[in-house]
Amino acid sequence: MQLGMVGLGRMGGNMAERLRAAGHEVVGYANDGSGDVASLDDLVKALAAPRTVWLMVPAGEATNSTVNALADLLEAGDLVVDGGNSKFTDDAVHAELLDGKGVRYVDCGVSGGVWGRTEGYGLMAGGDAADIERLLPVFDALRPEGPREEGFVHAGPVGAGHYAKMVHNGVEYGLMQAYAEGYELLSAGGPVDNVGAVMKAWSRGTVVRSWLLDLMVRALEADPHLDQITGYAEDSGEGRWTVDEAIVHAVPAPVISAALFARFASRQVDSPAMKAVAALRAQFGGHATHKAGEAANEPPTGG
Amino acid sequence: MQLGMVGLGRMGGNMAERLRAAGHEVVGYANDGSGDVASLDDLVKALAAPRTVWLMVPAGEATNSTVNALADLLEAGDLVVDGGNSKFTDDAVHAELLDGKGVRYVDCGVSGGVWGRTEGYGLMAGGDAADIERLLPVFDALRPEGPREEGFVHAGPVGAGHYAKMVHNGVEYGLMQAYAEGYELLSAGGPVDNVGAVMKAWSRGTVVRSWLLDLMVRALEADPHLDQITGYAEDSGEGRWTVDEAIVHAVPAPVISAALFARFASRQVDSPAMKAVAALRAQFGGHATHKAGEAANEPPTGG
Amino acid sequence: MQLGMVGLGRMGGNMAERLRAAGHEVVGYANDGSGDVASLDDLVKALAAPRTVWLMVPAGEATNSTVNALADLLEAGDLVVDGGNSKFTDDAVHAELLDGKGVRYVDCGVSGGVWGRTEGYGLMAGGDAADIERLLPVFDALRPEGPREEGFVHAGPVGAGHYAKMVHNGVEYGLMQAYAEGYELLSAGGPVDNVGAVMKAWSRGTVVRSWLLDLMVRALEADPHLDQITGYAEDSGEGRWTVDEAIVHAVPAPVISAALFARFASRQVDSPAMKAVAALRAQFGGHATHKAGEAANEPPTGG
Amino acid sequence: MQLGMVGLGRMGGNMAERLRAAGHEVVGYANDGSGDVASLDDLVKALAAPRTVWLMVPAGEATNSTVNALADLLEAGDLVVDGGNSKFTDDAVHAELLDGKGVRYVDCGVSGGVWGRTEGYGLMAGGDAADIERLLPVFDALRPEGPREEGFVHAGPVGAGHYAKMVHNGVEYGLMQAYAEGYELLSAGGPVDNVGAVMKAWSRGTVVRSWLLDLMVRALEADPHLDQITGYAEDSGEGRWTVDEAIVHAVPAPVISAALFARFASRQVDSPAMKAVAALRAQFGGHATHKAGEAANEPPTGG
Repeated sequence: MQLGMVGLGRMGGNMAERLRAAGHEVVGYANDGSGDVASLDDLVKALAAPRTVWLMVPAGEATNSTVNALADLLEAGDLVVDGGNSKFTDDAVHAELLDGKGVRYVDCGVSGGVWGRTEGYGLMAGGDAADIERLLPVFDALRPEGPREEGFVHAGPVGAGHYAKMVHNGVEYGLMQAYAEGYELLSAGGPVDNVGAVMKAWSRGTVVRSWLLDLMVRALEADPHLDQITGYAEDSGEGRWTVDEAIVHAVPAPVISAALFARFASRQVDSPAMKAVAALRAQFGGHATHKAGEAANEPPTGG
Repeated sequence: MQLGMVGLGRMGGNMAERLRAAGHEVVGYANDGSGDVASLDDLVKALAAPRTVWLMVPAGEATNSTVNALADLLEAGDLVVDGGNSKFTDDAVHAELLDGKGVRYVDCGVSGGVWGRTEGYGLMAGGDAADIERLLPVFDALRPEGPREEGFVHAGPVGAGHYAKMVHNGVEYGLMQAYAEGYELLSAGGPVDNVGAVMKAWSRGTVVRSWLLDLMVRALEADPHLDQITGYAEDSGEGRWTVDEAIVHAVPAPVISAALFARFASRQVDSPAMKAVAALRAQFGGHATHKAGEAANEPPTGG
Repeated sequence: MQLGMVGLGRMGGNMAERLRAAGHEVVGYANDGSGDVASLDDLVKALAAPRTVWLMVPAGEATNSTVNALADLLEAGDLVVDGGNSKFTDDAVHAELLDGKGVRYVDCGVSGGVWGRTEGYGLMAGGDAADIERLLPVFDALRPEGPREEGFVHAGPVGAGHYAKMVHNGVEYGLMQAYAEGYELLSAGGPVDNVGAVMKAWSRGTVVRSWLLDLMVRALEADPHLDQITGYAEDSGEGRWTVDEAIVHAVPAPVISAALFARFASRQVDSPAMKAVAALRAQFGGHATHKAGEAANEPPTGG
Repeated sequence: MQLGMVGLGRMGGNMAERLRAAGHEVVGYANDGSGDVASLDDLVKALAAPRTVWLMVPAGEATNSTVNALADLLEAGDLVVDGGNSKFTDDAVHAELLDGKGVRYVDCGVSGGVWGRTEGYGLMAGGDAADIERLLPVFDALRPEGPREEGFVHAGPVGAGHYAKMVHNGVEYGLMQAYAEGYELLSAGGPVDNVGAVMKAWSRGTVVRSWLLDLMVRALEADPHLDQITGYAEDSGEGRWTVDEAIVHAVPAPVISAALFARFASRQVDSPAMKAVAALRAQFGGHATHKAGEAANEPPTGG
């Protein structure tokens, strides 16, 4: 089928390629001029009604403004899919805005990263059943080979797709940190000779085998001690939102939150909290700090 | 080749079957009389020198006493493999004891659970290169099909196999808890209609795809809301040892430890710590506790 | 000075008493008819302009509707203080609403619980300097004896008082959980004979001495094994908001979040996450669960 | 009474002063020659039987060798007190060794740091009742003024004193980290103007008032943004042992362990675990790392 793709970055561009390889007609637009058309307006004109426009633009302002613009340009019966990493609470807003023009809305969480083009993407969609049905040819082209239900789900009403993707990413944070702690411990001076070989041997038969493990093995094959990489880990919104939602629903999330906080800490040049701990140690114990500590030996003032 | 297998439970019994299916001759012994021979003594007599005896008995006392007995029964040139979940620090003790008789020793962490019989076991071995070499036919029969290095590793000297397995299990705790938190949050009242279907859709293409996820999907297919299962999770030694080792090496292990503590908490009928928190809340805030709280309204005594 | 107090519960009622004992004139109103006047309207009429009205009503709807009503009833030059546990983001809304009528607004976090009436309350205020100045006689009556700056702070502009109180409560969660874990460990079978006596001996001279410890000692004197208390701990909003804010500012908060999650877990009859962990253990290991587990022994299906 | 003090560092030296100020006769020995006598042998000769020797030397080797030496030098009826931070499991070994010579043994956890000399030390003792009784004059001189039971406890048999001190220090880790997280969040860009002033205002009336808070206030008065201190926090053994013991007894210790791990992380120049996380992000997402990441854009190899 015919599809407009807005956003042709690492995700959108690869998805457009995979869709074309499956026989779909994709008209691409990107605001850097790299697409098939020069404007959203042209994109809409290039598509035959009823149109399908798939968004792969950054969550937040960029997605909001694109949806706003499309609300003006599209017609009743058209359909917008937000495949980006929007917060699930944005979906109701977008759906309502478009619904005012009779334009349909589906949110779709997309997982798979740069590997998705060849291996297929995991897809989690939210919206009305009829809209999902209409998009099945697209979902089938994007998802991996195999049974549809192993790479695609209609997760629930509008918002459920991004919600499922948010939790997916929260879980991902926990998984990554678990492997990372294991890597560090294996490397920390115990009897293991070759950490990369051990993790590679986990690839088959073990309980911890996974795709992330496969990537860890690849990374260690390229750089056995990760010498080329700094321990600085960004986070995108989904991990934060997952913990926020856990708090809203009173769900204990010690592992996902610990993984998130480890990333925060990884980006600090010097931790204010640990300055405070060091300061306290100096105060009560006269323990030396790296720079100061004289105060610790003053006579007590009654504190 | 010929092999004695001591311990024919869920692990040892399945491994014996897999080895036989691969053409090896396995003489099994179990202290419940279920084996091919009636005693360790008979086992040793049934094997041709130089013998190989593989232990799959519970870690700790059972393994220690078996090694002790074998030290008396075996001859120089024989080889003992401890494939159980022994603590890596036990290995040096066992190796030294056997070495006094000229008996060789290899430790081998074995992962895969009840699935290993058909799918193969992930293997992590520690010991001298010559001993490992001698065991390769056994390792090759036990490990999954595919490249040897993806299901087997010679991890280092004696102890390294169990060390690698210990860390493997620590990572496993973190992975399981990550999926578990995701499952709980998906189930907690958000917009997702069918949690099992969402997790099944993570099976292909997503970043979180793994064998543990496949098992989670199976569990939810059999019991969509896990109604048949109580939230009571045992732990075996490896998770504890992993955190102990992290502490020895000053490795931060927030995720693995959080997963371990969640298991501890799952087994408490009533948490003493949370009694203390509830008591404190009653003390300062006059907050009602479930049973008492009168003390909170007493006049302060100068505390 | 003269002051209207709205809300005469455990906090507001005690604060009114303390203010009166210090010579202030307090006109109390509560919607259960327990106050000096029968309505907010009567309260406003009973006060001489420029009026000061202090709110001690539950955060959220109750506070919002009271501020809304006061915005209609008060006059330019009057002053509203929100002393409840409102979220700091509510303060800007309230201040703006009142500012439209020329009514001033101050937010004030109040700590101390049921002990505040006799010992004084810790106060953290946000607002304009002139408004704070005007309220100093009230703050001085409410706060404990001693230097003003040890029991009161003008923390910053509107919102800063509740922000400081929010963080105070987040810290409080961490402190309580730390003592609670210590209590549980002391009680867990080690060599300590009398846990209450040990914690009492921490009251003087030690690094961990604190008011919360004093309360813990009191609780254990009344109920040495906390037999009368269930390990069920509520949380109010501030702990959650603290973690939310930590996430907004990318501040690692492992301790405060762990304390919050421990409370969530304490209220679960059965943990969905731990059901998932138990289900996974049954799947891969054939480990028995408390009710089921048969699936674990089925032959693998290729998952 | 007469007492030998072995170890005259920050703790032992101050304690000797406090004891002398209370009228006790202290003969001090330190291996740097700073004491009253030149050797342990001389110390023993300088004391009248039955002797009391109090050890304030580093835990582990130094304490072990001192106890060993004293076992040779002392006579039946003499008494050794280990007031250092020994692991509680060392106490049984020391007690048994000395008991072979008829020498009594008491372990005593001592808290208070550099402030103890003037304010008194919190004391937690383990041993036989008769030995404790004999030492009461010493305990009374060392502990703070006030009721004995608020600064001293006979916690149980040999080992119980160090056990209580170990848990004390574990709690201390949690408390410090809770304040530290609060300090960091207050400093992180919210509406609070003056973090030091806010924490000072917590000193009286609030739920979080404590001695550690007083020290935090002192530290911030001396260095309002802790510019003179690096966020590098050492740990001594007790925090580690507390988590170890929690694991032995299956006690969830999320807060104490999080505080310990934060210290470990504070000392890492670059975190291997976070390198692994960054490497994984680069692998699946093509996310840039600080130095490398090219591998992420390679075509998948079937992993």
